[in-house]
Amino acid sequence: MLSVASREWRLRSRPKGRPRESDVELVQTEVPPPGPGTVRIANHVMSVEPYMRGRMGGEATYAEPYPLDEPMLAPTVGRVTDSADPSVPVGSLVLHDYGWREHSVVPAADCQLLDHEDISPAIYLGLLGIPGMTAWVGLTRIARVEAGDVVFVSSAAGAVGSTVVQIAKRVGATVIGSAGSADKVALVRDLGADAAFDYHDGPVKNLLRGALAGVDATGLDVYFDNVGGEHLEAAIRVVRDHGRIALCGMSSIYNSAIPQPGPNNLLKLIWRRARMEGFLLGDHTDARAEFVDRMASWIRDGAVRPVHTEFTGGIEGAWAAFNGMLDGTSVGKAVVPLAETAAPTGGP
Amino acid sequence: MLSVASREWRLRSRPKGRPRESDVELVQTEVPPPGPGTVRIANHVMSVEPYMRGRMGGEATYAEPYPLDEPMLAPTVGRVTDSADPSVPVGSLVLHDYGWREHSVVPAADCQLLDHEDISPAIYLGLLGIPGMTAWVGLTRIARVEAGDVVFVSSAAGAVGSTVVQIAKRVGATVIGSAGSADKVALVRDLGADAAFDYHDGPVKNLLRGALAGVDATGLDVYFDNVGGEHLEAAIRVVRDHGRIALCGMSSIYNSAIPQPGPNNLLKLIWRRARMEGFLLGDHTDARAEFVDRMASWIRDGAVRPVHTEFTGGIEGAWAAFNGMLDGTSVGKAVVPLAETAAPTGGP
Repeated sequence: MLSVASREWRLRSRPKGRPRESDVELVQTEVPPPGPGTVRIANHVMSVEPYMRGRMGGEATYAEPYPLDEPMLAPTVGRVTDSADPSVPVGSLVLHDYGWREHSVVPAADCQLLDHEDISPAIYLGLLGIPGMTAWVGLTRIARVEAGDVVFVSSAAGAVGSTVVQIAKRVGATVIGSAGSADKVALVRDLGADAAFDYHDGPVKNLLRGALAGVDATGLDVYFDNVGGEHLEAAIRVVRDHGRIALCGMSSIYNSAIPQPGPNNLLKLIWRRARMEGFLLGDHTDARAEFVDRMASWIRDGAVRPVHTEFTGGIEGAWAAFNGMLDGTSVGKAVVPLAETAAPTGGP
Repeated sequence: MLSVASREWRLRSRPKGRPRESDVELVQTEVPPPGPGTVRIANHVMSVEPYMRGRMGGEATYAEPYPLDEPMLAPTVGRVTDSADPSVPVGSLVLHDYGWREHSVVPAADCQLLDHEDISPAIYLGLLGIPGMTAWVGLTRIARVEAGDVVFVSSAAGAVGSTVVQIAKRVGATVIGSAGSADKVALVRDLGADAAFDYHDGPVKNLLRGALAGVDATGLDVYFDNVGGEHLEAAIRVVRDHGRIALCGMSSIYNSAIPQPGPNNLLKLIWRRARMEGFLLGDHTDARAEFVDRMASWIRDGAVRPVHTEFTGGIEGAWAAFNGMLDGTSVGKAVVPLAETAAPTGGP
């Protein structure tokens, strides 16, 4: 077997504040044939996600920083073109984490075989992937949502938020979402939210109070936080007794070069006996089977529907796609198609 | 029966910031004989507690604000002098909430009979009272402390904190305490803490890191927060995976007229999958039997010992005592003896 020509994004320096073009480089390279136990994959679609900003920084967070001068990582779906491991034959459609490149060599053990050719690959990156399961775990395990709860979610048109809106409605909650444009607000309502607002339209605390009044609620039982900052303070302000705040992300501060002050009303967590809890998906792999089962059935029923933004430009456009997603230009799951998902010519 | 002369502290205006003498008034009054279902009590010792500051303010917190122009409330131990209810006979030693006065008329249903004449009344206000049970509930139910945990507690020489130190040591934790003077730090060490520091000696984050190094620990499993502010931010900074922060009080901001910014590092709660939870004793009355059982046995064994500050001046000194407690001039449970705990002349 021969090497194949490929392009990949390598991290050249650790961004301070907003990532810049000079922090990365698109490199032309040759991907060798797979060695024993590995497979070579032609990638079809890759994901860009907010957490990647954290891994580009050098600080020890929950995940290893991306090494400098190597290709970055991203959840990606592709087709196996060459296999040196019988468990993942040529022609398999697989999900793996070796994205930010056109062709990848991946250990067979790191490939998840995708059986359902009828399900769009992007769904494996979205509803059935990290964002979908993050919404599920945050709502059911951390916030312990129940029918009748009033649930507020920020970035409600985002990959996680748009799933939170739909799951919360499915379990019988009243749902309020915030988003960053009129179009996004319309989408959030369309997904089933009982109320939604554009956070640019005034102080979040006022907008949230208005939304609560609109659904005849006196406060929140659950806040699913994707942004931190002003949203978090506003949510604490109206949390009800025994409220639960699931801390999933804080996109309002990811690009801050200096620490931002936190909410000024934490005393309310005492008065309301409220709980605020951070979580990461890696602690909840045991929830996966139940999640996939439930979500696949919701998708089949049409009870939950995928929301995607496909950025154009293939691998060349991936960096702009990542920054566009961070800047809020996308709705739902932001993906970057790299090549056609053609049916395999050979294979099983 | 005749009325008895008594003095009582009434709230005249709602304090802004630090309470002032002009916010209250010591009033000479006549306490009538008890009506049906009530008893009249000569009070021996009353408690002054941080939460009273909140009830003096007009804001709706977790507890009703004290009404203006009426006597305030405080946990108090006294002897029944006149009874119009057979369940609480004359001569009974009782715990009730109608303090800030020398004589009280109290519904029999609001009196807790204190059976053990050998236990000092102040213990019923401290180790066996609200502060003791607050320490117990916060550690066992909210922070779910376990043997081997590294526990940090602020206001560690205070009524709650000094009990947290002792309970945490009893269950096998490593304990670090912070307090506001060299004498208090010495007391905290004497109560069994493995490390203690005076928070005036530098940035709390540095002092806490030093204390952790001193006990060979890399971070905290539990932070029992009595003060908020800089302490809370410092604790979040070094919280370990799955850490628990029990929010009990925020004395650093009780007297703030304007909201203070919160910790700037809440993102760490996500990275560390940490939980921060407020609590109030009223939700945990079902823990009372187990708590009293355990604490009474620890007190009898000498495994946990009472720490009290008795303010002088009787009822006249109660206002100064309250402010002294807020200002940190007391250690352990701050109490105000009102009259001798004489053996009853009549009674059972």
